[in-house]
Order: sequence, then structure tokens, then C-alpha cells
Amino acid sequence: MAEKLPFASDYMDGMHPAILKRLVETNDLREPGYGFDSCCGAAAEKIRAACKAPGAAVHFIAGGTLTNALAIDACLNSSEGVVAASTGHISLHEAGAIEHDGHKVIELPQERGKLSAAVLERCLSAFFTDENRVYMTAPKMVYLSQPTEYGTLYSLAELTEIRALCDRFGLLLYMDGARLAYALAAAENDVTLPDLGRLCDLFYIGGTKCGAALGEALVIVRPEICPRILTLMKQHGALLAKGRMMGLQFDALFTDGLYGRIGRPAVEAADRLRHTLKTLGYELYMENPTNQVFVVWETSRLQKLGERVEYGFWETLDERRSVIRFATGWSVREEDLDALTGLLEEFRK
Amino acid sequence: MAEKLPFASDYMDGMHPAILKRLVETNDLREPGYGFDSCCGAAAEKIRAACKAPGAAVHFIAGGTLTNALAIDACLNSSEGVVAASTGHISLHEAGAIEHDGHKVIELPQERGKLSAAVLERCLSAFFTDENRVYMTAPKMVYLSQPTEYGTLYSLAELTEIRALCDRFGLLLYMDGARLAYALAAAENDVTLPDLGRLCDLFYIGGTKCGAALGEALVIVRPEICPRILTLMKQHGALLAKGRMMGLQFDALFTDGLYGRIGRPAVEAADRLRHTLKTLGYELYMENPTNQVFVVWETSRLQKLGERVEYGFWETLDERRSVIRFATGWSVREEDLDALTGLLEEFRK
Amino acid sequence: MAEKLPFASDYMDGMHPAILKRLVETNDLREPGYGFDSCCGAAAEKIRAACKAPGAAVHFIAGGTLTNALAIDACLNSSEGVVAASTGHISLHEAGAIEHDGHKVIELPQERGKLSAAVLERCLSAFFTDENRVYMTAPKMVYLSQPTEYGTLYSLAELTEIRALCDRFGLLLYMDGARLAYALAAAENDVTLPDLGRLCDLFYIGGTKCGAALGEALVIVRPEICPRILTLMKQHGALLAKGRMMGLQFDALFTDGLYGRIGRPAVEAADRLRHTLKTLGYELYMENPTNQVFVVWETSRLQKLGERVEYGFWETLDERRSVIRFATGWSVREEDLDALTGLLEEFRK
Amino acid sequence: MAEKLPFASDYMDGMHPAILKRLVETNDLREPGYGFDSCCGAAAEKIRAACKAPGAAVHFIAGGTLTNALAIDACLNSSEGVVAASTGHISLHEAGAIEHDGHKVIELPQERGKLSAAVLERCLSAFFTDENRVYMTAPKMVYLSQPTEYGTLYSLAELTEIRALCDRFGLLLYMDGARLAYALAAAENDVTLPDLGRLCDLFYIGGTKCGAALGEALVIVRPEICPRILTLMKQHGALLAKGRMMGLQFDALFTDGLYGRIGRPAVEAADRLRHTLKTLGYELYMENPTNQVFVVWETSRLQKLGERVEYGFWETLDERRSVIRFATGWSVREEDLDALTGLLEEFRK
Repeated sequence: MAEKLPFASDYMDGMHPAILKRLVETNDLREPGYGFDSCCGAAAEKIRAACKAPGAAVHFIAGGTLTNALAIDACLNSSEGVVAASTGHISLHEAGAIEHDGHKVIELPQERGKLSAAVLERCLSAFFTDENRVYMTAPKMVYLSQPTEYGTLYSLAELTEIRALCDRFGLLLYMDGARLAYALAAAENDVTLPDLGRLCDLFYIGGTKCGAALGEALVIVRPEICPRILTLMKQHGALLAKGRMMGLQFDALFTDGLYGRIGRPAVEAADRLRHTLKTLGYELYMENPTNQVFVVWETSRLQKLGERVEYGFWETLDERRSVIRFATGWSVREEDLDALTGLLEEFRK
Repeated sequence: MAEKLPFASDYMDGMHPAILKRLVETNDLREPGYGFDSCCGAAAEKIRAACKAPGAAVHFIAGGTLTNALAIDACLNSSEGVVAASTGHISLHEAGAIEHDGHKVIELPQERGKLSAAVLERCLSAFFTDENRVYMTAPKMVYLSQPTEYGTLYSLAELTEIRALCDRFGLLLYMDGARLAYALAAAENDVTLPDLGRLCDLFYIGGTKCGAALGEALVIVRPEICPRILTLMKQHGALLAKGRMMGLQFDALFTDGLYGRIGRPAVEAADRLRHTLKTLGYELYMENPTNQVFVVWETSRLQKLGERVEYGFWETLDERRSVIRFATGWSVREEDLDALTGLLEEFRK
Repeated sequence: MAEKLPFASDYMDGMHPAILKRLVETNDLREPGYGFDSCCGAAAEKIRAACKAPGAAVHFIAGGTLTNALAIDACLNSSEGVVAASTGHISLHEAGAIEHDGHKVIELPQERGKLSAAVLERCLSAFFTDENRVYMTAPKMVYLSQPTEYGTLYSLAELTEIRALCDRFGLLLYMDGARLAYALAAAENDVTLPDLGRLCDLFYIGGTKCGAALGEALVIVRPEICPRILTLMKQHGALLAKGRMMGLQFDALFTDGLYGRIGRPAVEAADRLRHTLKTLGYELYMENPTNQVFVVWETSRLQKLGERVEYGFWETLDERRSVIRFATGWSVREEDLDALTGLLEEFRK
Repeated sequence: MAEKLPFASDYMDGMHPAILKRLVETNDLREPGYGFDSCCGAAAEKIRAACKAPGAAVHFIAGGTLTNALAIDACLNSSEGVVAASTGHISLHEAGAIEHDGHKVIELPQERGKLSAAVLERCLSAFFTDENRVYMTAPKMVYLSQPTEYGTLYSLAELTEIRALCDRFGLLLYMDGARLAYALAAAENDVTLPDLGRLCDLFYIGGTKCGAALGEALVIVRPEICPRILTLMKQHGALLAKGRMMGLQFDALFTDGLYGRIGRPAVEAADRLRHTLKTLGYELYMENPTNQVFVVWETSRLQKLGERVEYGFWETLDERRSVIRFATGWSVREEDLDALTGLLEEFRK
């Protein structure tokens, strides 16, 4: 029986060959634990350089939810909350991790997965003029994701505007970059790593979905906003004895500009897939310029599709239709894309 | 200089005379602590009778936020959340108390402060069919307030429908009755205490805003849903050594049907005030049948009003206008209402 | 059948007559809520004067556990813990309230309920020289109680020494004064309210067990250590709408030096009771100079005692013996003490 | 300049060659995420077989602190606590992770790092007969580590006795096996994996310190004690997208009995080192039969030692002496041990 076509997600593969090579090369080294090893050191240095953030602290953490929980818990006291789009990963798909740490996620309406400066300003203005604000959770941080959960991107102009609001109201800006490589690889993207280093207070550069086996790099631009971060990492279970396992991966990802390139095949494949779908008359649920393709699909025909392709179920749209996701990764294969194109034609008949 | 007219809230007074009398009468008794005294016992018995909930556990707690936090924390485990209107007291005005205990408040759109069965059903259906729900906070309780934060009421039909949804999806129904006496006193109300005892899993009967000095009566209809409740009360700081101070107040409030009557003058005064406002051409922000009156007021004229009346600031409506609240209490005085009427006429000229 | 003799605790009574009088007098006032009323204002002013702490913030909270939880949570961030005697109220009898808020109670060995400077210094020195301290909870506050849970007292010299350690290691000093009136009334006590205002960063003056119906006065000597305290009070459910109910009680307690006097009858009665017990050959479990009397009692004879006296069970000492507590309160009656003396003689035969 | 001798810890190396081989072999597979891959499946099956626990749920988690926090949080409600030795890893060296989740660690006195059945029974008996237990954290789980933080071992008889206490008092038994391979390899050990599967409710098999790059295998013998465990893993940040990275490592560790063998060289080296130390007249701080060697060392000579050897600082013993640790790992080299022996002789002169 033929294998199904692999478009379920961008984390189905192992490591990028360059990472695997580095792992094999460094396996026999004896190194200090807890992130004090030479791999983490080298990776941090390269990330600081890539982000033009020479004073940043860089910590490697095993997954995105843990990174978000840690970053938010480290920056907020218990009367403060984090503002996020209602479709933000922390709002919906982290099983209440932020609230488990005692912090409210102040969810705002979004458009195409994005929080607009206008909506944010309305929220912040309302709070800071509310005579009852002493009895309310104070917004202290803005959480964005780049790309968003719908694959859309903030432009540099949009980010700059949100940063200005953060400055005006005294909030921190935090960016979840779980799929950042796919943002950096998108044609329409105009936000660079140095822009993040300049505009964000902290952000993370995703590894797990961008070629690594595991690991996210948390970049704290001004480390003084998170005192005792190592202790908090330990408390959150985010401090790995063999931190080197993540350091070496980011070292490889930030050698010779790999991270800037690694998402390109995925984005190009997704662009081609979007084109195919539209040509064939499928309805895209939401267009975006990165590696996730959201399509409207008749619910009754999902099973049939599932027999041939691994796809991601996204949400129920209405009584008859669902939204599904095809995701491409850095390792997408031409032949799989061709086969998917064939299949989509077949389903159209 | 004349005192300002007292319409800021329904908790500006001391105790109702019947309560004060009971307090003076019982002050010399020596009683066990922690709610095991005869006052708490008698009050609990009367409340069980009034609610036709003979098996209910009744606990007295010093304030509404603490009662909400305790009730929710006692019923949910850490992967479960509580569904509430986005304008619910727990959503907005308890400084993140629920999240501080680790639970997500799943905020839903509201209409006139109310959560509709239709909106609730959409949320619950979506969750229970979502293939990603294992990574999401599970809705386990519905939080309602009667009257709502906007003074509106759920009808018996509406409550019955929400209860049916809770049964269908396995959720608990919890009612915040901070101002319940004013609901019970409203002409259009058709939800009785026995209805709450029948439809809710737990609810609280408000004392502080309904004639008591302090205290809310948490009624847990089926005590088995909250095991070790005394320990949780202690942990939350909700177990008072002299619980009798709250027991005696509820004993008085539930003697000779006082609680059913105590809100009437307030509701009648509010009805009259709404009539006056409309007659004079003021814009009511939201009509409701209870003791809070929400009026649209020009922001630039708030200060002038504030020199003569104590009112509650509610929210900024737009650049020019605010929403304010006049609240009447059980002790509202005819002459104050007349004076407010005069003032409103004066401001209209 | 005769009533049992009332020595179970010091919170079996209602309010002190002077408090009841103030309550009746102020009941008809219309006052702002949430502690902004004139009663709270007056009480706070008197407390600041009594403690010679003119810059202190004073907040009234409904119970001791809630006050402890709030004070500790307001001062510590999540990587910091509070040091306490292993017999401290927060260590043992608050159902894990401090941990529920996310903070570790670092429990140290005690002697007669007290934490010694020597033990504390050893703990702090060990922590601050430990090369692994980055992976450990940092001690940030010392919790003491005066009197302790065993009725013993810290002397001024002892407190001064502990304060010096706090200064040296950068810790805050917090005092739980649930029964502070009985400390102030003890013959051997040399720690005054101004001493607390000078040596502690924050402390609370107990009301519930010292003549009030409910309420504890949290005195934050330097308010800047607890920013956004009102929001945290709200979040903890510690902000009562009718804060005046506690303000008026402390206003009465701090008028004409009542608080300094109110514990005397209790302490004198306890002294007399200790003398009786020793004369009759009973074994005191632990001597102390305040209002709690701890006696070793044969477990098999507890039931018989319980038929005649209300006492407090303290702990199982060994297979044969238990520790029980007789507590006297501000309202102790000569005739009850005489009757208890008679009974103790009878039991000795 | 010569490299220092590597005895700082057992997590300085990369992966065991057999693991690296498996990683390279499986890197090109496309696999489902979140632990649903074939590697995790195979590893879980082998672990269930090795532990003779056919109904167990096995989950792979990135580190020990996270595993402990998750296991404890999943089993306890908020009024329940976990009993542990005062030297337990969760008591001391996890930065308050358990308390951060809201649970009290009930710390008991230990001997040589071990909790004795006698001490445990005293604690549990006292609690369950204490009339005030309703106001106390209820012990609901016993936390042990095998080997302990001092390298000592529980015997089968000791474990059986503790299990009986757990049964008698209704507690769960949880075992932290961060270094379990070194216990299994010790000559005096008589506790097998099937014993753990029979006596514990849940336990974890350590990978990070036993040859893996990262990962611990949490074995929940009766999965019904932890409902919604995947959601809790997500909430704790413990659910890795590429769970396969841990699955493949445990698959290798549990192939051909590797896990049972992997600790032997380390334990033999440690035995030899202990013998050398004693022969040379050094004082062992605490003898134990596993891979950690604790030696008393003059504090003033630590620096000199540190120039030649990587060792672990353990604690300050007194004003003059410290306790240090030499740890051997699965990859210990004969020549390093010889060199350390030479150095120890040299220091003795």
C-alpha cells in the first residue's frame, strides 16, 4: 500500500542534514551542563550577531509552549496580563499554560490572525482611562506571532506602530517565532531579524518547526527585564542538563545563513499549492504568504482525502464545510507536491 | 455645604436594621468558630428551605470575588476552564482572580450583559468536535450572574435552556448572585430561589450589596462536586474564625422573607428614575429591570454632575460621551430620589 | 444541663462592647466602599500614630490566612520564598495557602515555636554561599508570629538580631500578629508597636482574636515594597466593598489605647491557670507568657474532660498522651476560671 | 595546557553510540508529532515489557524537573501535597517548581538521603489523627528517588514497607529515577524494573543522565490516576512536537537490555574511586553503592583541586571543610580514573 502524502505539518521530519552533521561531530565532546557549554555559547553569539542585539541574553528551550510560558511568567507580576489575538497560540492551543502560571491572557479580536494597532490602541486607551482599572488585570505585554497561526505576516510598518503603542503605554513586546524561518523566507516579508532585535523586548526564534529536532531560542534583548531567568527556567522545567543538544542545532542553523534560507523551499511549494488550488476552483480559507495553506473542504469528503494525504484538521466552518491545512516544510519533496496536485485534480472531477 | 446625592452604589450603607438587631442580640453568645456556630447553622437551614435544596451545603464567605474564586477553584481541575460573558465580573473586574488560581476564563460575546444559549452552544459544540481539543482548556463550568453586570435578567426559559446545554456537554452551572435580591424584586423576574436550587450546581446569594454588612452565601446544591471544601476555604483565606458574623446576617435576611422584599424599594426607585430620564430626553445606555440605571452622559459635563451627585463611572463610550451608573439600594430615600429628579431637570435646561 | 466551660479559643465571643457601640453609631452613615471610607481612614491614622510609622499603608483584611497570603504574595516574585518556623501558622495550618499562590515556605527548625537568629543565619549563609543557589528558591522574607503559635514571645533583642540578618541578606521581615494584643499585655513583653513599626517591613495587627468581630490590620511600613496592593487585594478576594466594617472596629480598638489593654484579663487569667496547673501537678507542655495554656493530658481521659470543658486539641504527644490547649480571651470571666480550677482539682483526685 | 579530568557530573557527554546510531537511522522518517510516532510507540512497548506493566502509559518528557512537576501536578488536587525527604530533588533543587504549581512539598527528616518507613508512618499517623487536619495540606503522594540525591538506594524490603504505608493511608507512590540506570547497575541493588512497576503508582526512568541526550520516560502504571494527561503535558510545556527524538533514544536504551548494562562502568569506577579515597585516608562524606562519590575536602584547597579536575561542589560542611562530588558516567574512561587516582595521591602528600 502506498504511503500517504505528507502535508500534515512542518514537524514530521527529523533534523536538517547540517544539524545532524553537527550533532555527530560534537557528540564526543565533554561539555558543561545547563547551557554553559560551547555549543550554546557559539549559537548565542551567532544569534546576537544575526539580530544585531549584542547585549541580548539567548536561552535555548525545548518547545514553544514552554518558551511562551517562561517568557511571559518571567516578565509579568501576578496583577499583570498579556494581550493577544483571540486566535493566538497562547489564547487557544496551549491548554491554558499562561493561566496555569497565574496570568490572564487578554484576548482581542483579530483579523486574519493579526492584532491591529487600532484594536490594540482601543484596548489600551480604554484600560488606562478606566476609573475601575485598579480592579482589573493590567496589560503589561503584547504577544504577537510571526507568522501568525494563520500564516499571515506583520509588516515592518505594522510592527513599528505596535511598538510605538507599547512605548506609549509602558508595555513589553514579545514575539512568538515558532515558524519564523518561513516568515523570513516569504516574498512579501519586510521584517528582518535585526528589526525584531530592535522592536521587540523579547522574542523566540523557532527551531522545532524550522529544521531542528527540538529547541527554540529565546532572545531577551534587554536581559534586565527578566531577573533570575535561570532560576525561573529551572522552576519551569525549562533548563535542560544537556542544553548543548539545542545549542548545537542553533549553531548549525545560524552558520552560513542557513536559517535565512531554510524556509524557502517550503514557502515556494506552498505558493505553488495555493496557485494550484485556486486554478482548480478550490476555496482558500485565508490567503497567506508562508508555508501553511488553508482550504475549505466538504466535511463529508474529508475521510476520502485522509486516505491519501496527511493533512491538518483546522476547524469546522459550518454544518457542511471544514477548514483544513496543508503544511509544507523545509524538506518538502517535488514529487510529493506533484502527487498532491494530481490528487487535487482528481478530487475536482 | 450640602452633601452629595448618594447614587454611587448599593453598598454605601451599613446593615439593614433587622440585621443590626440580630447582631446586637447575639453578640454575647459564645459560639464555636469556622462556621460551626448556631447562627450559621440556622441561616443555612433557612436558605436550604428557601431554595428547596435540602441536601445543599451552605457556606458564608466575606465577599463576592472570594466566593467566585473559591467556587470555581473547588470545581475545576487545572486543565478545565469556566465559560463567561466577556462582561462578566470574573472576566473583567476581579483583577484576574480566576487566572491567579490557574484557571482560564473562556470569554464569550454577550448581549446586554447576557450569555445566550445560542452563543454557548456554538462554543461548546466547536470545542467538543475540535480535533485539537486535547491541547485546549476544556470548558467545565458556565458562569452567569443574575442580575448581570448590566442589571439585566435571565428568564426562567433562558436559564432552563442553558442548563440543558450544561447537561448535554457535562458542564456545571454556577450563578453569581451578588445583587440577587434586586433580581428577585424585579417585576419582570420569573426565576425564583427554588429555580436556582433546581437549575444550578452551585450559586451564591449576595449579602454585601443586599443589606448585609458583609457576606455571601455559597449554596452548593450537590456537595459532592466540591470535596474538601472546608480545606479549600481555609486555603483561599475564606474561612473566618467568627463565621457567626455572616451567619447571623443571613439568618436575619432569611427570616420572614426579608431577602425577597429587601430589594423592592431600590427597584421601584430605579424604575422611576429610568422613567424620569427618558421623559427628560436622556439616553439610557441599556435598559434593565433592576436597581442599576445606566445613562449616557457628555464627558465634559461629568465634573459638574459629580459636584452634586455621587454616581458610578462605567466606561468611555466614545470621544465625547461616557456611560455612568446611578445605583439605588434597599435604603434609598424618597427625598434623595426627588432631589436627583430635580437635578436632572436642571441639567437638561 | 450545665454549659461547658468556654476555654476552646479566643474567638468564641462577639465584639468588644466598645466596638459594638461604634458599629451601632456608624451604621447609618453612607460611606464610600473598598476602604476609602472615613472609618478606615480614621483607624489607619490611629494605627500609624500608635506604631510611629507615619508613612505606612494600612489595609484591613477579613482574616489572618488571607492577610498572610496577600502580604507574602505581594512581596515575593515567583522564584522567591518565605522562611518560617516549621510550626508557623503558614507552615502548618493554612492548608497550603502560600504554596497555592506559588511560593515555597522554607521551613526551619524551631524552639518553643520560635525561629532563632542562629538557625536563620545558618540557613541564609548556606543559601548565599551555595554554588547551586541559582537552582533553588531564594529566601526573600522572614515570617514570624508574635506571639508564636505556642504563645511564646520574641524579645526586642531577638527581633533586633533577626532584623539585622534581614538587612545583611536582603530579606523582608513580616510579622503575623493574629494575637498581638496578648503579646502586648504580657508581663515579660518588651516589644512595642513602635518597635514593630521600626523593625518590620510589614506586619499585621490581629483583630478577630483580640476583640473584633473580624478584621486584621495589615501595616506596610514602606508601601513601595508592595506596588499595586489594591489590585492584589482585589485579586485575592481581600478587598471588601464595605471595608468600613473593619475600619470602625480598628477605630474603636485604637481609641483611648484599648488595644494595649484589651488582652490583659486574658493574660492574667492564663497566668493564674498555669499556676493552678503546676500547683496541682499537671505537666505544662510548654510555658509561655500569653493567653494560651498548653497542658499534657492523658488521651484516654480527654473525653471525660470534653464533657465539661471546651478545650482545643493540639497534638498527639505519644501513644498515651496528648497536648491540649486552654485559651483565654479578652472577655474571660472570673467565675469560669474558678470553675475550671475546681474541675482541674477534681480531675486530679 | 592539559584538559581537566571530567568528574563534574554524569551529563557531560553526548549520546551513547547506540542511541546516536538509531538517531541517524531514523532521521529521514516522516513521523506523526506529539509522541504518536513509531519510535515512541516502540519504546513505550519495550518499557512496558521491561517493567512488566502491560497497562502502563509511558510518556517521554524533556527533563527531570519537568517530569516531576507534571507527575505531581497531574495526581494532586490543590488541597493535597507530596511528602518528600528534606534533601529530595523537589525539596531543594528545583527552584520551587512544585510550589509554583500550587502544591506543598511536605518535607520530612531523612537519613543518608532516604525517607524511612518509620518517619513516614509517624508523619501520616499524626496527620490522619490530627483534629485540625481539615485546615492542613493532606499528604497524597510519597516522592522517593532511586538512587537518592546522595547516591543511596532503597532496598526492596524498604520499598515494600513504604508501599504498604501508602496503601494503608491512601497515598500514591512516585519514584524519581533520574539516575535509575546506576541503581540497576549497583551490586547491592535488589529492586528491579518489574518491582517498580508493581510497587509504584508512577515513576520515571531517567535518560538524560543515563546515556541519552535528553528525555525521561514517565511510566504511569495505572493511567486512570492521571486523566487528561496529554492536556496537562501541553499545559506544562512538556509535549514536544517531535516527541520521536526522545522515543528513539529510549527505544535504543531498551533494546537488548542496554539500560540494564549502561550504568555498570560508572558504578565500577565509583567503587574503585571510593576504595582509593579510603585507602589514601580521605573522608567519604557518605558512602553509597552508585556512581556518585561524596568526599570531604578542605575548603581552602578547593581551588587547587579545581585547576586539575572538574568536580561538583555539594555543600559547605563547616567553617573549614566542604563536601564535593566526583561523578562517573556510563562513558567513564580508565585513563581518566587512573589520572584522578594519581592526583589524589599527589594531593595527599
